[in-house]
Amino acid sequence: MSEFVYRNKEELLYSQRVAQLSKALWRVIEKDWQCWIKPYDLNINEHHILTITYYMKGASVSDVAKYGSMHVSTAFNFSKKLEERGYLTFSKRDDDKRNTYIEITPAGKALIDEANRHYFDTPHAILEGSLKIKELYGRFPEFLEVTAIVRNIYGNEFIEMLEQSFQNLSHTLDTIDDVKHSELMKEA
Amino acid sequence: MSEFVYRNKEELLYSQRVAQLSKALWRVIEKDWQCWIKPYDLNINEHHILTITYYMKGASVSDVAKYGSMHVSTAFNFSKKLEERGYLTFSKRDDDKRNTYIEITPAGKALIDEANRHYFDTPHAILEGSLKIKELYGRFPEFLEVTAIVRNIYGNEFIEMLEQSFQNLSHTLDTIDDVKHSELMKEA
Repeated sequence: MSEFVYRNKEELLYSQRVAQLSKALWRVIEKDWQCWIKPYDLNINEHHILTITYYMKGASVSDVAKYGSMHVSTAFNFSKKLEERGYLTFSKRDDDKRNTYIEITPAGKALIDEANRHYFDTPHAILEGSLKIKELYGRFPEFLEVTAIVRNIYGNEFIEMLEQSFQNLSHTLDTIDDVKHSELMKEA
Repeated sequence: MSEFVYRNKEELLYSQRVAQLSKALWRVIEKDWQCWIKPYDLNINEHHILTITYYMKGASVSDVAKYGSMHVSTAFNFSKKLEERGYLTFSKRDDDKRNTYIEITPAGKALIDEANRHYFDTPHAILEGSLKIKELYGRFPEFLEVTAIVRNIYGNEFIEMLEQSFQNLSHTLDTIDDVKHSELMKEA
């Protein structure tokens, strides 16, 4: 060690603070996420892989690993399991023989839609914990600092992909409601 | 399901956005944390238990679980392993026979001091990712939104304990530098 800790004390304290906050936040989200998708016999990585292939509309195994914050081997192994259950298919592209691409099947989409339809059947502590902020400021927190840091670490592409997938998710949710609406109209 | 997804679309999109950002942030922090403490043959939970007992100055197993965002059984099992290695001792208190208290040993403190002394020997992506923000605003981000949400979910006590432990950590770092400084003086 060439320097005094003191010189970097601010950095050390800052990064350990972020580590503890991030651990606490993630533990809560992880628990809620697991509870939400339990009825569909999926773990978090499997669910994440399905949503990425759904909303990205065609992704390679390395895309899935990158955007799902998991190892390539984790992405590959869980994708294989999802393929066995009929939720994904693997393919090679004529213009890119090196990468393996993953596509979600209609059964996979139906499973994700079903999970979204039942999103509010289980508790989401992150929502409970954010409501006071929404009452105070009139909207949910924007996480600009976290987004900026994630952007600096993972690159612009990561955040752009995140925004794109949320737009696609948003459209999907509208479709779910349209279907629901027309079902109710028929019943009436 | 009694309601349209649409009515809660904002909530669903918000909480899934936070989930993805939180996963991405935690994966980076987890990797850096593991890399930092690897030379001391500790995993993240073991290191977290040692720091909590160090900076809280006496904690029960349930305190460790609460402030370390881990299950009570996880806290207990890893504490037992740390006891076997001579870094912790277990005890009962005369005024509280129900809870088991954990105390860090001098060897445990020495290990944590040693890890802090070598903090900058390994990369910390969170620091790299925050430096542009520091350059722009003159200081590191404060994570006020995340802190508020964690406070709402875990309670005031959790954040107060976090602040207290960072103050204690800060004092400990000063001591490390004092020792280092006097060693250098002797050498000179």
